[in-house]
Amino acid sequence: MQDVKESGLAGPLLNPRSVAIVGASDDPKKTTARPQQFLAQAGYAGNAYFINPRRETVQGAKAWPSLSALPEVPEHVYIMTGAEAAIECVRECARIGVKVATVLSSGFAEDGEAGREREDRLRAAAATGDVRLVGPSSLGVVNPRNGLMLTGNAAFGEPGTPTGGIFVASQSGSVIGALVSRARGRGIGFAGLVSTGGEADLSLGRICESTLDDPGITSYALFLESLRHSEELASFAQAAHRAGKPVVVYKLGRSEEAAALSVSHTGALAGEDSESQAFFDACGFARVNHFEGLIEAPALLQKVAATAHRQEPRIGVVTTTGGGAAILVDQLAVRGMTIAGPSSKLIADMTAAGAPVPHSLIADLGLAGAKHEIVTNALQLMQDSGEFDLILFVIGSSARLNPELAVQAIAERGGHHVPLVAFALPEAPAAAELLIRSGVPAFRTPESCADVIAAAFGRRVTTIGEGARFAIDPSTPGTTLDEMASAAVLQRQGVPAYPSVALSLAALDGPIEIPFDFPVVVKALSDKLAHKSDVGGVILNVPDLAGIRVAGQTIAANVATHHPELALDRVLVQKMADKGVAEALVGYKISQDVGPVVVLSTGGVLAELFADSAVRLAPVTLETAREMIQEVKGLRVLDGYRGSTPGDVEALAKTIVAVSNLAVNDPDVLEAEINPVSVAPVGGGISALDALVRRKTDQAGEALPLELQSTTRA
Amino acid sequence: MQDVKESGLAGPLLNPRSVAIVGASDDPKKTTARPQQFLAQAGYAGNAYFINPRRETVQGAKAWPSLSALPEVPEHVYIMTGAEAAIECVRECARIGVKVATVLSSGFAEDGEAGREREDRLRAAAATGDVRLVGPSSLGVVNPRNGLMLTGNAAFGEPGTPTGGIFVASQSGSVIGALVSRARGRGIGFAGLVSTGGEADLSLGRICESTLDDPGITSYALFLESLRHSEELASFAQAAHRAGKPVVVYKLGRSEEAAALSVSHTGALAGEDSESQAFFDACGFARVNHFEGLIEAPALLQKVAATAHRQEPRIGVVTTTGGGAAILVDQLAVRGMTIAGPSSKLIADMTAAGAPVPHSLIADLGLAGAKHEIVTNALQLMQDSGEFDLILFVIGSSARLNPELAVQAIAERGGHHVPLVAFALPEAPAAAELLIRSGVPAFRTPESCADVIAAAFGRRVTTIGEGARFAIDPSTPGTTLDEMASAAVLQRQGVPAYPSVALSLAALDGPIEIPFDFPVVVKALSDKLAHKSDVGGVILNVPDLAGIRVAGQTIAANVATHHPELALDRVLVQKMADKGVAEALVGYKISQDVGPVVVLSTGGVLAELFADSAVRLAPVTLETAREMIQEVKGLRVLDGYRGSTPGDVEALAKTIVAVSNLAVNDPDVLEAEINPVSVAPVGGGISALDALVRRKTDQAGEALPLELQSTTRA
Repeated sequence: MQDVKESGLAGPLLNPRSVAIVGASDDPKKTTARPQQFLAQAGYAGNAYFINPRRETVQGAKAWPSLSALPEVPEHVYIMTGAEAAIECVRECARIGVKVATVLSSGFAEDGEAGREREDRLRAAAATGDVRLVGPSSLGVVNPRNGLMLTGNAAFGEPGTPTGGIFVASQSGSVIGALVSRARGRGIGFAGLVSTGGEADLSLGRICESTLDDPGITSYALFLESLRHSEELASFAQAAHRAGKPVVVYKLGRSEEAAALSVSHTGALAGEDSESQAFFDACGFARVNHFEGLIEAPALLQKVAATAHRQEPRIGVVTTTGGGAAILVDQLAVRGMTIAGPSSKLIADMTAAGAPVPHSLIADLGLAGAKHEIVTNALQLMQDSGEFDLILFVIGSSARLNPELAVQAIAERGGHHVPLVAFALPEAPAAAELLIRSGVPAFRTPESCADVIAAAFGRRVTTIGEGARFAIDPSTPGTTLDEMASAAVLQRQGVPAYPSVALSLAALDGPIEIPFDFPVVVKALSDKLAHKSDVGGVILNVPDLAGIRVAGQTIAANVATHHPELALDRVLVQKMADKGVAEALVGYKISQDVGPVVVLSTGGVLAELFADSAVRLAPVTLETAREMIQEVKGLRVLDGYRGSTPGDVEALAKTIVAVSNLAVNDPDVLEAEINPVSVAPVGGGISALDALVRRKTDQAGEALPLELQSTTRA
Repeated sequence: MQDVKESGLAGPLLNPRSVAIVGASDDPKKTTARPQQFLAQAGYAGNAYFINPRRETVQGAKAWPSLSALPEVPEHVYIMTGAEAAIECVRECARIGVKVATVLSSGFAEDGEAGREREDRLRAAAATGDVRLVGPSSLGVVNPRNGLMLTGNAAFGEPGTPTGGIFVASQSGSVIGALVSRARGRGIGFAGLVSTGGEADLSLGRICESTLDDPGITSYALFLESLRHSEELASFAQAAHRAGKPVVVYKLGRSEEAAALSVSHTGALAGEDSESQAFFDACGFARVNHFEGLIEAPALLQKVAATAHRQEPRIGVVTTTGGGAAILVDQLAVRGMTIAGPSSKLIADMTAAGAPVPHSLIADLGLAGAKHEIVTNALQLMQDSGEFDLILFVIGSSARLNPELAVQAIAERGGHHVPLVAFALPEAPAAAELLIRSGVPAFRTPESCADVIAAAFGRRVTTIGEGARFAIDPSTPGTTLDEMASAAVLQRQGVPAYPSVALSLAALDGPIEIPFDFPVVVKALSDKLAHKSDVGGVILNVPDLAGIRVAGQTIAANVATHHPELALDRVLVQKMADKGVAEALVGYKISQDVGPVVVLSTGGVLAELFADSAVRLAPVTLETAREMIQEVKGLRVLDGYRGSTPGDVEALAKTIVAVSNLAVNDPDVLEAEINPVSVAPVGGGISALDALVRRKTDQAGEALPLELQSTTRA
């Protein structure tokens, strides 16, 4: 939702009628001289003013002493001064009614305590009026469609920034120039590029959202160094979804090593990157792992609709070079995608149409595939067959040497509703340009081609809600509840209670009644014992009442030895569990970056070592929970892998949903974990054998009435 | 080892004084007309003859009726006829003394039974003389240094194939042209390119080995669709190692999905790709996962020596663009490589030299890094510091716009013994060309850059031996031995015997003596029972002699129920094992492609699902065995991961070595597996709790004397 200050931001941001450069230099070699040169070269048609109080002219243009001295109020000001002067300038912008100020100046939040204080003053200066800020440390704002070149990025000194439908927003300033250079001569172009800098005022999400009404922008490419202001990014995601404009994102921090090295159960398994991924999935963003995918993906995203859940795409491969096609098939397979071969009928039809292909997964046209007519016939039949969701054409040497043959034929088939993508094995820039201009996504490397296809088919329908909660203060104080109280919190969300009863140690000498069968497990019950097994606080297979008394004494002694400060007064007696088909860990936490997430893994050391977990923003639907179960490799035993008994996947899915509902029903819970959830054979349900909940401290005392804690929940 | 026919092959292959094209066409549009055009364009200075019995001239040159009619014997003949004519032509080559014939013709082994028969006749035709064959289905042989263009690949119609030190051998014909097009304008060039085709006579390995004496060839780039003729590839690897010429390989079939989908214990875990990888490691080849790495890696391989074992390289990153450098750091981290930051002293020295960098992992020169002198100073200090094994320079926009600045300075530092590599964030072909020509490897994508660095530092010293055994016939008949006999076979290699005794069921009623303590395990003992647990053939925790008798009866009954055809007459009694720190699977097999391999995994379903195994060619040294243990993630518990008791890694390593020694000491063993090997805490050794050996059938009966099988090995 945009506030009043923000509405109409897109005009001054990307289409200002007038601009001013503050700190413009007369020395043409200086960075601060560049915007003037770039604006002139790009033919910016609005009024451009250059502020330099120490000179009469700068690079031949009149130098103005200040913004206030200008004959009109510029709509967009680019501030290239030092930090303190920038603050003063923003104050002046606010006073005279400038709409947007982009701040190149550095020395703010990235610069320690003094910098943070300066950034507060920068924001305060803007708040004295209606000016909105891009930056600080922004390498600028560019709109190649109208010659707006408010940037010191040397890359824009090169004439002819290619125009097109992609809007780039990047937390790295050098990336915007690099993407333009990599798009040149390939038929890929831009409707705008913004270096978002420190995001002191306008976040990357807000900047993008403000441009959604621009009809020239057909897709968004985001370069993220970290996940900041996720609530505003989510707001943009919803608006982009409504506008039907796809978003591709490249985010640093994918490293599995980093994830594997982190520690401690749910925290480790969720990890930062898996949380980011869960967030992007909920936003409906396609995530690429190859840098050039940022500019290569948008064309394909226009053609492949997001899906609610993972579906295996039927990818047909047609080629003039068997070896080249094999590279692509391999790259797709590495990413979990298999190829759909043409049916016998289709092969017969293609043969009849002069485009014979072998009975094989790959439709190899061989030398005939260099002929325009044969390629046309082959593609028409494949596209009309209904056998494919995507057709990938791997082109051989003709792509480079004779693009008028196969490439031209492919380009002409780009309008069909079954999307077509192309990869040329040789270097073939002219072919790529022709293809992309014809609506056929084309790629430079086989790896990026496969990655973008995977990203496009992996893109989910936007599900992130208006009411989602986001970042919490990591210092929020919390208290851990004991196992009985934790289980009660989870039971309220629908996690089945496991037969348990809490007994005071003092009462063990008197008459005891256990409302379930022996054998039982006796556990220390305390909110101060995080790892009760490690201190002899758990005794399994207790056969009778006498055994419970002995176990209680043993546990009390063990805990006293390890934690003399802890006055243990209760034990929890639980029914011994039957061995299930599999054990899982279901966790929940409020991530600092993306808000509530639910995590599923097998628990244990191996799950951590392999980062074998599924993470989603909470709450989730039953269908999403089922998908999570499919994602965790270690839980494939639930499907009867290698002859094992199939497990009760539905009961586990319901448990995941129940835990995830904490996000809406019990927002004071900071963390929760059921470990293990023992999954019985189909129809047998699940057993939540241990539970741990951490809640905000101010709620912990009052939330659970004592009678609930001491009552059997069997 | 080269035989007589092969010595001196390199001359006629790459530097023939005369060539003939058989099947040369007069129609300039035909594939068969191309070699004549290409030879003329490339300025081939030898004598070139064109054979076409149906014409007087072809494309203006004299057409000869046959090879025999030529005024001299051509050294290298390119045959572009149909299959049957090609066989006749090869016979003629053999008769008149042609040294090398390259065969474009198809219709041989790839073409079913008739094709295989034709290929036999092709080989037989060659064997009537001394002619050696490249192909069939070879797209040709190219030497851009002398204009030798024996190829129908259209890509070579483009003038100016770049020359350099790389020799390409490819199982895919289109790849040779694609690599040339991708190398153009980047300072990368070729000393030769061969499409090896069907390898009916000369294998890819033989072709490469024959060229090793060519001083113009400095490295080899291999494109493999499958691992064929591995013995000859290994022979080439050894010779290349002696010649000091590095080899980079790209091989299809990396897909993890394919590996994960395969089945059954060791076979599944070893999988085809892990065997290929083990083979490449033993060969000392660097393997890249990005197609362009084939032409980008050689420059770096010249500078990074192969190592005997994995060492963590100290990679320093210096940049003018923090965002760009972060992309590379992330890409390296995904591949398990961490960055080494400059020391405080080095930072101080750089600051004093006018190249101030922050106290951070990345030496970010910022805007100053566009200045030649500052880059020179920074690199000199970093290279001389002794703190880095490799320095990676990530260049910003100046790489494209002002290569005379930072790029020139980087190029000038390329001669230092500490290797320098460069990645330009923008598209910067001129910079790449300057850098590569100056000996600084440069890359187009951040992904390939990181991949090549990983491949270079992952390259092993060539260890593959002259005497290694290779491919066996997959139909070799084998017999499975029972557990006792299997253990005996492994004990001879040094696998510690586990306390066991075999008892006949008939003898159970009489007096029994068990030479170790109770409790014990009783197992069915039969070479016909592969999965004895599944049929009730294993009873644990038997407390005394009476229990052994009962267990024996129970097992006999169980086995009789499941396998009425099997006359079980013996059981194996084993000491119950203490719970170890971890359990491992040590396997051995003779791979059809690469010969004997040894495999280590944790065993079980998860190890399969995650393909968590280490594979090496057998035999291995103790140090390699230790490295294998480090590679298996599921065995990190042996190092005391998360507070577990450290395990006896040395004992496990010795067991791996012992099993791997089957390759030299007991070549009749086709397969062996110890599953599980229970690993005790440090100093406690290992227990080989179950064993399975399969030997060649003709040896199975006689190898194991009966007294050994029935004797206690405690």
